[in-house]
Amino acid sequence: MLDIRYELTQNKKEKPDESALGFGKYYTDHMFIVDHTEGQGWHDARIVPYQPLALDPAAMVLHYAMESFEGMKAYRLPDGSVQLFRPDRNAERMQNTNHRMCLPSLSTEDFIQAVKALVKTDEDWVPHQEGTSLYIRPFVIATEPHLGVRPSATHQFIIICSPVGAYYSTGINPVKIFVEDEYTRACPGGTGFTKCGGNYAASLISQVKAHDLGYEQTLWLDGVEHKYVEEVGSMNCFFKIDGTVYTAPCVGTVLPGVTRMSCIELLKKWGIPVSEERLPVADVMKASKEGKLEEVFGTGTAAVISPVGELRYEGDVAYINDGKIGEITHKLYDTLTGIQWGKIPDDMGWTVKVD
Amino acid sequence: MLDIRYELTQNKKEKPDESALGFGKYYTDHMFIVDHTEGQGWHDARIVPYQPLALDPAAMVLHYAMESFEGMKAYRLPDGSVQLFRPDRNAERMQNTNHRMCLPSLSTEDFIQAVKALVKTDEDWVPHQEGTSLYIRPFVIATEPHLGVRPSATHQFIIICSPVGAYYSTGINPVKIFVEDEYTRACPGGTGFTKCGGNYAASLISQVKAHDLGYEQTLWLDGVEHKYVEEVGSMNCFFKIDGTVYTAPCVGTVLPGVTRMSCIELLKKWGIPVSEERLPVADVMKASKEGKLEEVFGTGTAAVISPVGELRYEGDVAYINDGKIGEITHKLYDTLTGIQWGKIPDDMGWTVKVD
Ligand SMILES: Cc1ncc(COP(=O)(O)O)c(C=O)c1O
Ligand SMILES: Cc1ncc(COP(=O)(O)O)c(C=O)c1O
Repeated sequence: MLDIRYELTQNKKEKPDESALGFGKYYTDHMFIVDHTEGQGWHDARIVPYQPLALDPAAMVLHYAMESFEGMKAYRLPDGSVQLFRPDRNAERMQNTNHRMCLPSLSTEDFIQAVKALVKTDEDWVPHQEGTSLYIRPFVIATEPHLGVRPSATHQFIIICSPVGAYYSTGINPVKIFVEDEYTRACPGGTGFTKCGGNYAASLISQVKAHDLGYEQTLWLDGVEHKYVEEVGSMNCFFKIDGTVYTAPCVGTVLPGVTRMSCIELLKKWGIPVSEERLPVADVMKASKEGKLEEVFGTGTAAVISPVGELRYEGDVAYINDGKIGEITHKLYDTLTGIQWGKIPDDMGWTVKVD
Repeated sequence: MLDIRYELTQNKKEKPDESALGFGKYYTDHMFIVDHTEGQGWHDARIVPYQPLALDPAAMVLHYAMESFEGMKAYRLPDGSVQLFRPDRNAERMQNTNHRMCLPSLSTEDFIQAVKALVKTDEDWVPHQEGTSLYIRPFVIATEPHLGVRPSATHQFIIICSPVGAYYSTGINPVKIFVEDEYTRACPGGTGFTKCGGNYAASLISQVKAHDLGYEQTLWLDGVEHKYVEEVGSMNCFFKIDGTVYTAPCVGTVLPGVTRMSCIELLKKWGIPVSEERLPVADVMKASKEGKLEEVFGTGTAAVISPVGELRYEGDVAYINDGKIGEITHKLYDTLTGIQWGKIPDDMGWTVKVD
C-alpha cells in the first residue's frame, strides 16, 4: 500500500475538443511519481502537477534505454462513472518487462492503487464522446547519472494520462499492412515479450518504409527464419483461415497483449477454434489465393480491434474479405468495446471501477 | 560549420582526485547542446554549464528509447596538449546508428567541431595521470512529447565529458568472461551494429548473471544459432588460435569498434594473419583443449585492450595463456596507448589535435 502525497495544481489546463483528441497529444493536469533507490526500495509516492522532469544528462535512461512502459485505458460509462480494463494484467506484464530489463517493479496492488489514484484525481479528463477514453501510460526510467553499463541505483515509476480519440484517424476502416522481411523486431533470448523502449525504437525504420510504400503498419516475422508471422507494430495479429483463428504463440518474441488474451478467451467461450501454433506467412498468402483467408485483425489497447484489409508480402498482395470487416472481427470489437465502455454486462469479470 | 554560442559557468567545480576517477562518475563544467527540429534542421548550438535537462514526461526518448550515443576519448600528451583518436570514425558510426534508428545526424565536420569546442572549453578537465583520459559522450535523444509510435519531430544532440581512470578497477589484469548461451544481444535485421540505447538495456540481465557466477563480462553468441562468437559487453573480441587472429565479422550484428578496426590495421601491418570469418565457440573451446588457443582479448575505447584469462562456456572452462597477457595483446596495447597518449609517433594518421 503506497502512502501517496498530493500536491494539486493551481492552474487547471483547458480541456481539448473531444472530437479531435488524436492519440497522445494532450496530457492531464497531474502525474504520479514514486522513487526507487537501491537498498531502500520505493519511496515518496506523490501526485503532482504535470511538469517537466529534471534529468541529469548522464541519467542512464538517456544512454542505455533503461526504461519500460505500459499502456492501458480508463473508460467513461453511461452512468458517468469510470472503469479500468484488466489492470492486473498490465501490472504483471510490467513486472515481467522489468525483470528482463533489470528494472524495479511495483507490486500489482501498488500499481493498481497508483493508477486509480491518478485517474481519480484527473477524473474530469476522462472524455465522454463515443470511442474516446483516457489513455494511461505508466513507465519506469533509470535516473542514476552513470556512464558505465550496469543496472542503475535509482529509478522513477511515473504515470501520465492522455485523453484520446480513436487510434487510427481513418476510424475502424480496414488497415493496410506491410509484411517486413528485412528488418527484425525480436528473436529468441531477446526482449520481444517485453514493453521495453528499445523494441519500439528499433521498429521505426520499418514503419517509415511501410508508410513510404502506402501501408499503415508493419507485420513482423520471426527473427530467425523470417518465416512465421508474429505481430503488428503495436498490435497482436489474428488470422481466420478456413474456420480456425490463428495467432502467434507468446514464446518470448511476441508481446502478450491484454487484448489478445481477452480475444482468445472470448473466442474459446464462443466455441470458435483458436490455434496458437506458429503460422508461416506463406500459408497465409496461400490461404488467400485459395479463398480461405476469411478475416485478419490486429488487437491492442490503443485501437482495440483493427480489421486488416490488405497484406503485402514480397510483392504479393492479399486482399481480405473485400476490404470489409469480418464477422468475428466485428463481434469481438462489439463485445470488447461493449464491456470496456460498460454498454454490455461484464460477465468475464474484467473491469475494475475507479472510485 | 556550427555557430556555437558560449554561456560559461560562474561556478567551476572542484576537480576530483586523479588517482580515483573510476569510469563515468564525474562530469566536467560544461556540456554541448544543439537542437534539431523537423523541417528546420539543426539550430541553436551552444556550450552551457553542465545542468539537468528539462524533459517533458511524454518525451519520446523516455518511452520508445529513441536515443543513440558514441564513446570516445581525449588524451593528455607529454607536452601538455590534448588530442582525439579517430573522431571521424565515431562521427560516421553515429550517422549509421541514427540512420537505423530514424534519428537525425550531424555531419562528420560538425560532429568533430562540437567535440573539439567542448573539450577545448573544459581542457583543464583532461587528467594528467598515467592511463587517465577524458571520456567524451555524444548522444542524441528524441524530445517531442508524443505517445504514438513514430519518429520524433524534435531532437537534441548533446555532448558531456567525464574524466576517467582505467575502466576495470582491477587494472590490465586478465578478465574472466562468461559465454552467454541463453540470452541474445543481436540478430540479423536488428540493431546490433548500432550504438542505440536498447542494445545495452537488453544486455544487463546477462551481465548480472555473469557477475553472480563470478565473471566480469558476457561474451555474446550470434542470435540465430547461438553458435558463433560475436562480441563482449562493450568490447569486440579477438582470439589468437594457432598463429591466426580471429574476430567476428561486422555484418550487422556486431558493433564496428574503432579499436577493433585499429587493431586489425596494426595486425595486418605487422604481417599477422587476421580472419574475419565467423568462428564457432566450439572451435575456441576445442583449440583451448588442444593447446592452440594462444591469446584472447577484448578491444574498446573504455579499456583499450583487455586480455581475457578465462572463458566459461556451458560448464566448460578455457584458461588462456596461464592468466598472463599474450604477446600480441601486449604489443597492441603498447602501440595503441602509445599513439593515443602521444608517447610514440602516430604513423597511422589516427590522431587529431584539439587546439
Ligand atoms: C508490440 C505490441 N504488441 C501488441 C500490443 C497489444 O497489447 P495490448 O493488447 O496489451 O495493448 C502492443 C500494445 O500495447 C504492442 O506494443
Ligand atoms: C557493444 C560494443 N562493442 C564494441 C565496442 C568497442 O567499440 P570502440 O572500439 O569503438 O570503443 C563497444 C564500445 O564502444 C560496444 O559498446
